[in-house]
Amino acid sequence: MVELKNDRFLRALLREPVDCTPVWMMRQAGRYLPEYRETRARAGDFMSLCMNPKLACEVTLQPLERYDLDAAILFSDILTIPDAMGLGLYFEAGEGPRFKKIVRTADDVAALPVPDVKRDLDYVIAAVREIRSALAGRVPLIGFSGSPWTLATYMVEGGSSKDFRHIKEMMYARPEVMHELLAKLADAVTLYLNEQILAGAQAVQIFDTWGGALSGPMYLEFSLAYMKRIVDGLIRENEGRRVPCILFTKNGGQWLETMADSGADALGLDWTTDIGDARRRVGDRVALQGNMDPSVLYAPADRIRSEVAAILQSFGPGTGHVFNLGHGIHQFVDPESAGVFVDAVHELSASYHD
Amino acid sequence: MVELKNDRFLRALLREPVDCTPVWMMRQAGRYLPEYRETRARAGDFMSLCMNPKLACEVTLQPLERYDLDAAILFSDILTIPDAMGLGLYFEAGEGPRFKKIVRTADDVAALPVPDVKRDLDYVIAAVREIRSALAGRVPLIGFSGSPWTLATYMVEGGSSKDFRHIKEMMYARPEVMHELLAKLADAVTLYLNEQILAGAQAVQIFDTWGGALSGPMYLEFSLAYMKRIVDGLIRENEGRRVPCILFTKNGGQWLETMADSGADALGLDWTTDIGDARRRVGDRVALQGNMDPSVLYAPADRIRSEVAAILQSFGPGTGHVFNLGHGIHQFVDPESAGVFVDAVHELSASYHD
Repeated sequence: MVELKNDRFLRALLREPVDCTPVWMMRQAGRYLPEYRETRARAGDFMSLCMNPKLACEVTLQPLERYDLDAAILFSDILTIPDAMGLGLYFEAGEGPRFKKIVRTADDVAALPVPDVKRDLDYVIAAVREIRSALAGRVPLIGFSGSPWTLATYMVEGGSSKDFRHIKEMMYARPEVMHELLAKLADAVTLYLNEQILAGAQAVQIFDTWGGALSGPMYLEFSLAYMKRIVDGLIRENEGRRVPCILFTKNGGQWLETMADSGADALGLDWTTDIGDARRRVGDRVALQGNMDPSVLYAPADRIRSEVAAILQSFGPGTGHVFNLGHGIHQFVDPESAGVFVDAVHELSASYHD
Repeated sequence: MVELKNDRFLRALLREPVDCTPVWMMRQAGRYLPEYRETRARAGDFMSLCMNPKLACEVTLQPLERYDLDAAILFSDILTIPDAMGLGLYFEAGEGPRFKKIVRTADDVAALPVPDVKRDLDYVIAAVREIRSALAGRVPLIGFSGSPWTLATYMVEGGSSKDFRHIKEMMYARPEVMHELLAKLADAVTLYLNEQILAGAQAVQIFDTWGGALSGPMYLEFSLAYMKRIVDGLIRENEGRRVPCILFTKNGGQWLETMADSGADALGLDWTTDIGDARRRVGDRVALQGNMDPSVLYAPADRIRSEVAAILQSFGPGTGHVFNLGHGIHQFVDPESAGVFVDAVHELSASYHD
């Protein structure tokens, strides 16, 4: 086994001392990079890129060539699980993800299989192995999945949604059907993340993109409860080292105290929450990841640096912070601005660590 | 002047005693009502309906015929001001609002006129007069406007947006241009709301639909500061009675303490914030309005009633609460369910008031 040369990211997630604040960017392998667009064009389309372990590995490593990032994240899509359940994921230009089959009734839910990860999601697991080997210990590899609630929104709505009409109707009018679907998804996500860990993922993140569309009590019952169930079932140690787990609920800033009791090692924050307040609220229970508005990357270099400085100052001295954007990097960002951001984090954070 | 027969809504906004909790619904005159769809079809399209004071009055009163609501709200659109600034508002089926002219540069902003409300928005003021007269003192009439930040998002993006790319680029990279646009809009909104008040609006609400897309410091600087400027310039007493002002920032639950110091009489809450927590945070500085998830109206009657009961219990005894949905009522809601909601509020709230 190759030794990890830079473990800042893993150490900060476990609130162990670091020399400076580690940084990565959600969606760092993405359309803002010309080399990504080139590989994607070669692959044909987005799903062909996800399903080709060699090309998925290639794009995963691209941002590491440009920037001094402290982690790599598996290139994949959050909707691989519903696709493996037979729903037929496809992408329409400018429309986002769609499913051929939609899940609306108790019968639809009952008919859904829990996917056999090794068979139906072998392309993801192969990509994890490929990337881990190509990284050769440079930085840790993050595996990920969508949260059960977030996956369910796409499965029930049939794609993206603004008002979540159908899934909220299911949740409020037929909660038992909703729970059956979420339980199935939680089991599938657990198996999926564990296979990613066994294949080499050194940390995992659960993306709960749409948990913030719920009221507090509904969030606890229909999103957080199922993320907790996943956390409880995760392999937490592998290759002799703890595998940290990060929960990220976009627009979840009002519920951090409860999230901190989920068993996760770290919470992701979007930019609407002040990270200093968040730290005071969660105490030493979890590390925090975030949280610059990705749109700051549209600004000139000095504005990007001042924003990084403000977030570092708000978090304050000591470990327990992984710097990130509060959401995925936008496709129209100048790649140079991402470099300014990454360098600013390392440079300006050193004085906050002994 | 006709005496107001039901002033529960105004009293609760000023935290004066009431016999039961008043209730109205954002977008209560809307597509979920078959009689609204009928009037709209007669008008031709949405903007023709807004611009026809007689028909705008007709649809404003429709929900009052069906439900025991404690307030009427002017039927209009939040984008009348940018339209009056010459941007050419239009609606494309399924696409939401669009503008023919887009505001992106310092020159674009400098060229924008502050509209002459009496001339360019006379159709709105005429509608206020018409509705006020037709109400004949039944319940108070609410006037409204979009917030400067929210109006600016549509003007700079050219319509609805998911990531606010262009306006955030302006805000982060050219803040002085952003401030000039917002100052102009704040002046226009102040004039607009004051004309609505003079024409008969007995309370006003500022809809800040997109303030919640900002970080805390940006929200204070680019949204709340301009709403405060409007509040400072509003006519606060008319017809011998205080004209309460409600601020509603969707996804603004993390900033309630600062909003409570804005000079507004009440804050609107979406359903992601617990109203009991909100009450503890704002104390006796402001009343609260909200905050049931509009999707609860997809549930059976007993579930709607239990949700109303939970929100009333969370707020607790005493005045200072105007019940509402946390956002506009959805178009696919069964009108009967809205009736269940309104009746539940009156029936279940009586025991919380002496």
